[in-house]
Amino acid sequence: MSEPLALGIDIGGTNTAYGLVNRRGEIITKGNFATAGHGDVTNYIAALTTALLPIVEKAGRSNIKGIGIGAPSGNYFTGEIVYAPNMPWPGIIPMAKLVNEALGLKTALTNDANAAAIGEMAYGAAKGMKDFILVTLGTGVGSGFVANGQLIYGHDGFAGELGHVIAVRDGRKCGCGRHGCLETYASATGIVKSAEEWLDERNDETILRQNKGKITAKKIHEAADQGDKMALELFEFTGKILGQTLADAVAITSPQSIIFFGGLAKSGDLLFKHVRKHMEANLLHVYQNKVSFLMSALPDADAAILGASALAW
Amino acid sequence: MSEPLALGIDIGGTNTAYGLVNRRGEIITKGNFATAGHGDVTNYIAALTTALLPIVEKAGRSNIKGIGIGAPSGNYFTGEIVYAPNMPWPGIIPMAKLVNEALGLKTALTNDANAAAIGEMAYGAAKGMKDFILVTLGTGVGSGFVANGQLIYGHDGFAGELGHVIAVRDGRKCGCGRHGCLETYASATGIVKSAEEWLDERNDETILRQNKGKITAKKIHEAADQGDKMALELFEFTGKILGQTLADAVAITSPQSIIFFGGLAKSGDLLFKHVRKHMEANLLHVYQNKVSFLMSALPDADAAILGASALAW
Repeated sequence: MSEPLALGIDIGGTNTAYGLVNRRGEIITKGNFATAGHGDVTNYIAALTTALLPIVEKAGRSNIKGIGIGAPSGNYFTGEIVYAPNMPWPGIIPMAKLVNEALGLKTALTNDANAAAIGEMAYGAAKGMKDFILVTLGTGVGSGFVANGQLIYGHDGFAGELGHVIAVRDGRKCGCGRHGCLETYASATGIVKSAEEWLDERNDETILRQNKGKITAKKIHEAADQGDKMALELFEFTGKILGQTLADAVAITSPQSIIFFGGLAKSGDLLFKHVRKHMEANLLHVYQNKVSFLMSALPDADAAILGASALAW
Repeated sequence: MSEPLALGIDIGGTNTAYGLVNRRGEIITKGNFATAGHGDVTNYIAALTTALLPIVEKAGRSNIKGIGIGAPSGNYFTGEIVYAPNMPWPGIIPMAKLVNEALGLKTALTNDANAAAIGEMAYGAAKGMKDFILVTLGTGVGSGFVANGQLIYGHDGFAGELGHVIAVRDGRKCGCGRHGCLETYASATGIVKSAEEWLDERNDETILRQNKGKITAKKIHEAADQGDKMALELFEFTGKILGQTLADAVAITSPQSIIFFGGLAKSGDLLFKHVRKHMEANLLHVYQNKVSFLMSALPDADAAILGASALAW
């Protein structure tokens, strides 16, 4: 007689968070444990089982529709985590299969940005929306593209890497080995890199200089709030590159909205007035003044769990 | 007892072609008439009715599943042709509605590149494929993106304008008013523009110089076949820009294949060895050596009719 529930698991490089969620996106129970320190993945699965089996038993197995997992480099089609650079286990981990075997519930897995997009559809800013882009602006840039009400996984499950679209031809070196990827500019890490570069190259008076070598996105935000010219210009530079790249993405999927999530997305107008301006300036006429910008409607602390859980519906 | 049929109508700026097509993509009857010269759109519809009504009556109205129309700037959701620059009628033309009223059959309309993508799925190179991109390299560059087996129309019906992705920041002026759009480089018109520019700017010995001011894509192809260095370099330059832009598109939809269609697509290896090389060099590792290049499998003369007819199924 209980309401249907879904179990969401967000596997990060540091922490694994989980929660039991109802259809309205309310979290019934949640918890977390360290992802690393278990040795091989078998021991990690044992720890996960210890944490989750009591929750499954208590809620009643038949009330749980399934398990959704969000993980970096997660592949929806195979249920594998594939060469994730920040995970404790190397190579290809068949995580959905392992969790399914351990807990005896239908399990789906995708990457964290795709899970966030599905979470926004199920409980958040994209309820009822059929065409949108979810962009996470955090340490890196992630994205989930939804068209015709369905996530675009691509033929291999790896679609939606807006962070690795080349935003600046022959630009900054990216962790992926190429140059000029969007995430080298339009992430928290990217704006910090811009700041440190400018402090090396330029002689502007700026309060950021006192933190040279240990700039953070937060420090740039604070400096901008105090009217620091270089900090303001850093947001403009970052917003311009993001806006130009979004314009090209709009020409491909023509979304109703772009939904932003993640640390750098909290910069508000400091960043987004420039993103908007440069996106519009680079849009084909037919797309102009149509695409709304929304902020994620999922509560920060639980967004990853909610996103993962939404996969299970 | 007859097999089900679909009526395909391709409305071009110059010519309107139509055909009655079966499920296997075989054309039962076809014909064409001039698009212009009828005065207003009411008279055009009268001409269309005169041509098509006897075909509908002969085939038997109940055997025809519907009508599909491909037209430049066609919008699937509204059935309208919207400010098409090369059409004889200005503004917004509710073409699907007009044809539906004239012929009494369910009518759907989309733009010509989307129709080509649907045609490839129904009868051509994309049979059974769920994720691919159709790229037309003709006077301009058009595209249709298919994900999860469905065409991406976007929220407004205008998705899939790869030709207006900015391929070269601050590059060549485009007909759309912006700068550096892919179609200003990677179309038949684009490669000709490159040739004329180079003839102005450079002093290379090239057999193209004798045609300065009246270069065509065909002449560049012929010169390249004769080993002309500038002509070969023009294909390399064009292929590089197309390859770089396709790499970014792959990062968004991760297609199984990219299918090429149109005049410039007939350049074969002269062009595509460079497209392939530069696309691969600009792909994120996870996408490398996965995306096949295919040529359209629709017969040239009838491709537009077939694509349009496929909309009706």
